[in-house]
Amino acid sequence: MFDYKLLSALAAVVEQAGFERAAQVLGLSQSAISQRIKLLEARVGQPVLIRATPPGPTEIGRRLLNHVQQVRLLERDLQRQVPALDEEGMPERLRIALNADSLATWWAGAVGEFCAEQRLLLDMVVEDQDVGLKRMRAGEVAACLCGSERPVAGARSLLLGAMRYRALASPAFMARHFANGFEVTRLSRTPALVFGPDDFLQHRYLASLGIQEGFLHHLCPSSEGFLRMTEAGLGWGLVPELQVREQLESGRLVEILPDTPIDVPLYWHHWRNGGQLLGQLTEHLATTARQWLVPL
Amino acid sequence: MFDYKLLSALAAVVEQAGFERAAQVLGLSQSAISQRIKLLEARVGQPVLIRATPPGPTEIGRRLLNHVQQVRLLERDLQRQVPALDEEGMPERLRIALNADSLATWWAGAVGEFCAEQRLLLDMVVEDQDVGLKRMRAGEVAACLCGSERPVAGARSLLLGAMRYRALASPAFMARHFANGFEVTRLSRTPALVFGPDDFLQHRYLASLGIQEGFLHHLCPSSEGFLRMTEAGLGWGLVPELQVREQLESGRLVEILPDTPIDVPLYWHHWRNGGQLLGQLTEHLATTARQWLVPL
Repeated sequence: MFDYKLLSALAAVVEQAGFERAAQVLGLSQSAISQRIKLLEARVGQPVLIRATPPGPTEIGRRLLNHVQQVRLLERDLQRQVPALDEEGMPERLRIALNADSLATWWAGAVGEFCAEQRLLLDMVVEDQDVGLKRMRAGEVAACLCGSERPVAGARSLLLGAMRYRALASPAFMARHFANGFEVTRLSRTPALVFGPDDFLQHRYLASLGIQEGFLHHLCPSSEGFLRMTEAGLGWGLVPELQVREQLESGRLVEILPDTPIDVPLYWHHWRNGGQLLGQLTEHLATTARQWLVPL
Repeated sequence: MFDYKLLSALAAVVEQAGFERAAQVLGLSQSAISQRIKLLEARVGQPVLIRATPPGPTEIGRRLLNHVQQVRLLERDLQRQVPALDEEGMPERLRIALNADSLATWWAGAVGEFCAEQRLLLDMVVEDQDVGLKRMRAGEVAACLCGSERPVAGARSLLLGAMRYRALASPAFMARHFANGFEVTRLSRTPALVFGPDDFLQHRYLASLGIQEGFLHHLCPSSEGFLRMTEAGLGWGLVPELQVREQLESGRLVEILPDTPIDVPLYWHHWRNGGQLLGQLTEHLATTARQWLVPL
């Protein structure tokens, strides 16, 4: 078996963002922590920590960390039956990759009570689906919420529903660019908002309107920034309906084409043997996510 | 001089997120674009593009792209005096690194009109200050908005003001963890929200209250997600005041310690010879940012 004293030292340094705090949390000296990390690196045969402020895990370090998280989850299950095994009484941590728009809208509402009741802390990483699933495959995260259905080996995927996006712009933007009425053919020459180079939602929307060519766009890698940019009239963009109920009612944003949404499915990818807590979270999401997502 | 036909091909492939669209935009065949990229790589002596979907620039590719952006800005200045030089009539692009909370709050309001009037498209990258300034130094961005004052060589920094953060939690969170009244000493054992491993704002806040030890926390790398998590009662966290006026008024969020904010300064880093448009944007920010930021 692995030496979990060494792995716990690594986890503490990363979670506490430093050797000093890690030493405090584990009740050890800083040099003891350093020793353990060095020993771990000698065994692994390569660095597990990037020595920066704060220290971050290397790629192999991240895999070790996720392993620690998974072992802790399994320990947690066992501990319910054998409470005396508990050494620290610390809440569990779960590392989850998810898309930016879910995190910016319905995610917190869906998991809030669950985390509080289960004393669960979340390490969230925002990734598009390809990177999120790559992290699953590399064992860096316990679960991944994304638009792709196909699970990685050893994991399952579950359709939670879809997020509905609407193509929106500010009235000032519409007046500036479409003073004589909306024309689909001019859309590629008015600035759009695109989340980042991997975001093809606007491309797909334009393709559905018969526009295949490139188009002018800002890049704005922030869900709330994207909305603020739309409100400020910088461009048109596809925004989650969940995020703009109030803006649509008040008329601060308008649909560029009435009632022409795009639905994007969301799948929950989770390890088949991820322990009881991950299983409970999966069941919880399967029932609660429906409040915010549309059926597909 | 460089061969700008080659550099334009690189810029088009990255900006249009593919060879096909790049070819359309430049009115060339796909194989002509491929040829130009290969020739560029032969001259540079290393790859400039990562062949993925969509293709992304390598590190040297990003530097070349930023050079292209800067040359375009300079051309734009000249073009006002010699309009016939204009070949494409395309809007300019400016790549800017900025902090997530600015992008989520005041940034769009401050630059909206300016971008529309100047036909300026923004490529924004969200980075913490160390990475943002590293990108400045590497010539990957034209400007950087961050908390650090010290400019990189060849650039200037300008204090725009400060963002005010307040330590907030939901009433349900306060009831759950501080049913018998707030106690500073228990704060490290109630879950906090931390943006990411480089975010030390919560650490600084706790240190100012005399708490030096590590503390329980979720990691939530999204400004709006951070706010949603706070509202859902998952933890307490420092949130920009700009983002929570409505929540504070309605009582959906409360300050954990009355009127104990932290002000974080924001500096605008820009190249000294960045062209007229970057100069105008700098002047514009110097006067408008005050509407949202507090004086320091």
